[in-house]
Amino acid sequence: MEGDPLSALCTPAFVVDVDKAKRNAQRMIERCQKLGVQLRPHMKTHKTLECADIMTGGSQRCIVVSTLAEACFYADHGYDDILYAYSIPFDKVLSAHTLNVSLFYILLLKMYESYLTEGVELTGVYAHCGNTYYCTGVEQIQAVAQETTKLTLQFMEKLRAVGITCKSSIGSTPSCSHPVKDMAQLSEVHPGNYVFYDVQQSMIGSCCMEDVAVRVLTRVIGHCPHRNQLLIDCGWAGISLDGAGKLPTGYAVIEGHPNLKLLSMTQEHGRVEPISGQLDYSKYPLGSLLILIPYHSCATAVMHPVYHVHSKGRLVGKWTPTRGW
Amino acid sequence: MEGDPLSALCTPAFVVDVDKAKRNAQRMIERCQKLGVQLRPHMKTHKTLECADIMTGGSQRCIVVSTLAEACFYADHGYDDILYAYSIPFDKVLSAHTLNVSLFYILLLKMYESYLTEGVELTGVYAHCGNTYYCTGVEQIQAVAQETTKLTLQFMEKLRAVGITCKSSIGSTPSCSHPVKDMAQLSEVHPGNYVFYDVQQSMIGSCCMEDVAVRVLTRVIGHCPHRNQLLIDCGWAGISLDGAGKLPTGYAVIEGHPNLKLLSMTQEHGRVEPISGQLDYSKYPLGSLLILIPYHSCATAVMHPVYHVHSKGRLVGKWTPTRGW
Repeated sequence: MEGDPLSALCTPAFVVDVDKAKRNAQRMIERCQKLGVQLRPHMKTHKTLECADIMTGGSQRCIVVSTLAEACFYADHGYDDILYAYSIPFDKVLSAHTLNVSLFYILLLKMYESYLTEGVELTGVYAHCGNTYYCTGVEQIQAVAQETTKLTLQFMEKLRAVGITCKSSIGSTPSCSHPVKDMAQLSEVHPGNYVFYDVQQSMIGSCCMEDVAVRVLTRVIGHCPHRNQLLIDCGWAGISLDGAGKLPTGYAVIEGHPNLKLLSMTQEHGRVEPISGQLDYSKYPLGSLLILIPYHSCATAVMHPVYHVHSKGRLVGKWTPTRGW
Repeated sequence: MEGDPLSALCTPAFVVDVDKAKRNAQRMIERCQKLGVQLRPHMKTHKTLECADIMTGGSQRCIVVSTLAEACFYADHGYDDILYAYSIPFDKVLSAHTLNVSLFYILLLKMYESYLTEGVELTGVYAHCGNTYYCTGVEQIQAVAQETTKLTLQFMEKLRAVGITCKSSIGSTPSCSHPVKDMAQLSEVHPGNYVFYDVQQSMIGSCCMEDVAVRVLTRVIGHCPHRNQLLIDCGWAGISLDGAGKLPTGYAVIEGHPNLKLLSMTQEHGRVEPISGQLDYSKYPLGSLLILIPYHSCATAVMHPVYHVHSKGRLVGKWTPTRGW
């Protein structure tokens, strides 16, 4: 119920700090304005109307989506200028055409040649620079951003040389969180994860842990002293299996408990143990709340049919994402 | 559309062979009848009304669920005798009480003692024998089934000795696919995954690959000869990350292509490469279908808001699962 504290929620529950989400979105809007490039935010992380409104600064236009289901969802709710950024297989061409969404194509000239058949107009060149996800720190991120920008602009030059003028777009959350000056020469950037961020982004250097806007709430449902473990009511159905082997704290960071590790999971159970030492069970009574910070918020959000939204720890509403393809 | 071939589906699509699902369900019903033990099928793998009807042989009663959302869903649709088999945290006690579902408790006497407070009646003892998932072959499965049955029956004896008579239930898909005689002394068994089965169950020895009733259809959307890879339109959002490192063929088995491996995925893309040799791209034109057999059908099903149901390759309907907690 609105106004209730987070502790009123049944667990596991995916919760969004709306103030942090708004701050992350506003910073990206300002960063792109300052740089002088059009922001086209990606919807794939959250897939909700409310968060789309925040990311577009209320304009409800100029977005990018990863599925036709998202394209239909936003088009049905009045969104305009929707880019379906996907190597489109033949089964979806007709649907996308009916929707009148833009079909951007791919960076490689080779693919461009094979796709550019009669009746098709190249509207733009789209690259993701997903290799920023292997970076650590601003310097490495900006080196990848610079290289991707350079290659994309060189490719645009080649297109112009054969008489084709069209848009160019790059952008991952890391590169757009720390853009380089040359990105101003692109038509657009298209980050998405930044509205939530997550542990992965903080490790890459895109954000601080304080910027991460989402959590999964879970409760202690069992004490297993013979294994020096706690049992929690969040399994992979609530947090996802993303992040396996990436964190010293297991599949998530457990807020305020740096010595706890989410070791393993079944569908609806998680096993938590201390990184070192013996658990003091009096600190974790049955029913007590633990707060998981997701390794990858895109993967965690997709597990939840509803997001519980709060401001300063008080519930202010629910967001319902679209699902499927 | 009903009557269409599977190739009419947009991909990725989760498809259920209804004939195989019915055969798997019927075999379990007959196996339990022959053994003389009550079957209480688990709904967590599919979470649909249609499959529940198949698993209960049309009786629409005596089921087990893993979430309150499932309990409500089945209760709202007229199902009776619903067991919510979960170490219940305090936030859910009131809701479960309102629903009047049974609350079975846990195997360990210690937990039994800590829970058995005034006003609570112990209705049964429930053990999962999840350690059958580490088995290979019938002999190992039956050894675990025998041990779990023995321990459970010994525990029931201890309860009787202090004047408590209640039900007993064990059962995982492996142990109930190859039950041991002593399981007849239990009140119930509660397997779930068997209605779909999956690659994991075939590796354990619960079933043959021919028994696996579910697939994910995907299409080739890119050729990457510089990496000797295909790009497909199924990422972890369509097949899940379960099974990482468990199969020589990666995150799934690609039906009819034993030399292909689903190497890695992003949210909506999969990278496929040959286990050995060079890809012959003429065999995999853009838009061609590939069929993925899930490593773990519970984890794959949960990613899909709709299941496409077919009989002999022709679509016969859609099933819509419940989601959330």
